[in-house]
Amino acid sequence: MGTVPETLRWIGDEAGHCELIEQTLLPSRLEYLSVEDLETMRDAILRLAVRGAPAIGIAAAYGIVLGLRGLADTAFRDDIDRAFAHARERLASARPTAVNLFAALDRMEERLHRDGDGSPRDVRRSLLQEALAIHEEDRAMCDALGREGAALVEDGDRLLTHCNAGALATGGRGTALAVMYTAHEQGKTISVWVDETRPLLQGARLTAWELGRAGVPATLICDGAAASLMAAGRVDRVFTGADRIARNGDAANKIGTYGVAALAKVHGIPFYVVAPSTTFDLSLASGDLIPIEERPSDEVTQILGRPAAPKGQAAYNPAFDVTPASLITGLVTEKGVVTPVTEEGILQLLSRE
Amino acid sequence: MGTVPETLRWIGDEAGHCELIEQTLLPSRLEYLSVEDLETMRDAILRLAVRGAPAIGIAAAYGIVLGLRGLADTAFRDDIDRAFAHARERLASARPTAVNLFAALDRMEERLHRDGDGSPRDVRRSLLQEALAIHEEDRAMCDALGREGAALVEDGDRLLTHCNAGALATGGRGTALAVMYTAHEQGKTISVWVDETRPLLQGARLTAWELGRAGVPATLICDGAAASLMAAGRVDRVFTGADRIARNGDAANKIGTYGVAALAKVHGIPFYVVAPSTTFDLSLASGDLIPIEERPSDEVTQILGRPAAPKGQAAYNPAFDVTPASLITGLVTEKGVVTPVTEEGILQLLSRE
Repeated sequence: MGTVPETLRWIGDEAGHCELIEQTLLPSRLEYLSVEDLETMRDAILRLAVRGAPAIGIAAAYGIVLGLRGLADTAFRDDIDRAFAHARERLASARPTAVNLFAALDRMEERLHRDGDGSPRDVRRSLLQEALAIHEEDRAMCDALGREGAALVEDGDRLLTHCNAGALATGGRGTALAVMYTAHEQGKTISVWVDETRPLLQGARLTAWELGRAGVPATLICDGAAASLMAAGRVDRVFTGADRIARNGDAANKIGTYGVAALAKVHGIPFYVVAPSTTFDLSLASGDLIPIEERPSDEVTQILGRPAAPKGQAAYNPAFDVTPASLITGLVTEKGVVTPVTEEGILQLLSRE
Repeated sequence: MGTVPETLRWIGDEAGHCELIEQTLLPSRLEYLSVEDLETMRDAILRLAVRGAPAIGIAAAYGIVLGLRGLADTAFRDDIDRAFAHARERLASARPTAVNLFAALDRMEERLHRDGDGSPRDVRRSLLQEALAIHEEDRAMCDALGREGAALVEDGDRLLTHCNAGALATGGRGTALAVMYTAHEQGKTISVWVDETRPLLQGARLTAWELGRAGVPATLICDGAAASLMAAGRVDRVFTGADRIARNGDAANKIGTYGVAALAKVHGIPFYVVAPSTTFDLSLASGDLIPIEERPSDEVTQILGRPAAPKGQAAYNPAFDVTPASLITGLVTEKGVVTPVTEEGILQLLSRE
């Protein structure tokens, strides 16, 4: 049995620092970046050295602690608040669309309001406790997702996944990939088809690397090859993550996911979305209302830094698509599985303590 | 109105030479390679400087003429036959699976049997006539495909295509792309979504280039983005080529085509396959019998020469998939369109003079 990578970790006490996998070097090299100050953390988030909504939230929480490291032991509450506000602003502006980033910063700010009156060192200790708690909760959430999802996996299953919903995107073992790690550890024989996931190749660069390291048999395919594998009866179940899920169960995820789901339906293959309850946005009645980020066309026209298309070629590059609830066999959350996917079922599950 | 590229051409008389687009330089540079001898032609076919089954057939026919250029004017029939056999063997071994290559070589050999008793110069002249006839027939076939297919295109259509079934693959204006060129010339307003077509990116490198040069509005997308465009009602019709079509209408084409066809069906979008009658293999009752070439995994794990996946990563790389006749709205041939796609309809159409 191999190892699931630890995407980021805190070293030492409140005067310590953060280490995180420099993901821009993957899959060629596994190197931890030592992050000792606020600006290095902001830069790591900006450069996608750390990515994935849950992982970014944790990184930002640690970034706040680092942002207060420069305070003199004699600093007043005003100085602490100013340093916090500055750190918050720097981190929040690094990836303005990541919901978990703001949720983590909000939690850190609440903690500051509660414990901000101590010495700078006490405040840092208290904030570090909060950051570690955010990290630990994410880890536990991944484990729960893994347990819930693994119950759906049968011995001998040939699974398929799209993009990277793995350890590298979270503070734990991932979401969709946590299901695979758990099933594998339970002794089930599984293998995984990994969609390379153009344009940014998270499947090829990250998912294949993670699964390989953990000893889960994984075979990389071009996104266009999934359909013929399904037709040949070589895919038993599909598990993906989600970026946002509407109240009716429509789920936004990396571009290409909708096509995989529609093809799974055509071939009678169960399609599961694995995501923590924090991914649900109950303010949105359906997936039509989820805003879809359109990214620069050069992510399509250039690959790994090299031109793949004529100079000036027009390209369309939506980052996400929406899979309607009707194509989703079950929504796997840390609180249980919603199946069939209905608004009532979702509201009932999410209201559980 | 722009220009459809001329993939290859013969310059001069039987002592002349062939020029062909050095496709390995596309889309960065358009350069014609001057091919003056047999081995340069073989190498061009080997290196995919010229590719696409019809274009390879024509290149091989010209290659035969070049192979006889070294004969002295006093050479005997035996010398001519030996030179021909050598040229044939060299060309046939360049791409052993391309059916059109063998068909073209067979035609050249028949011509040799008929006219081989003249002087070396007369034989060369006669063989060049045959090669030019093969080229001209291909050009006319492309034009006919374009006319037949364009009748299915409506003003304002947003079309989608996969891989390169264009001028760069033939001696004329292509197959699926001939439809677009013709509709465009007829004054219909069309635009084309171009699947980039991993692993070898023929869509990004070749189709986008061809369409752009001809002035047909084209937008490049990652293969995984097609499904969400269909769901959004932004695709009116799909046209692709085919590598081989079974007697019942099942069609083998570049990997990813089957997924496009299945998704088109789900969204009620007409899906047409455009191919000359020579693409039909009536000896095969259905698509299950079409052998699918599995290509090296490094076409998936490396992109444009750079590693995209962990070292040693397992990958599965089928070059083609099979679209069942039930997903094909119509088969567009130079003799007309078979719709609905049935074995009877195919046999009836192909038997037309």
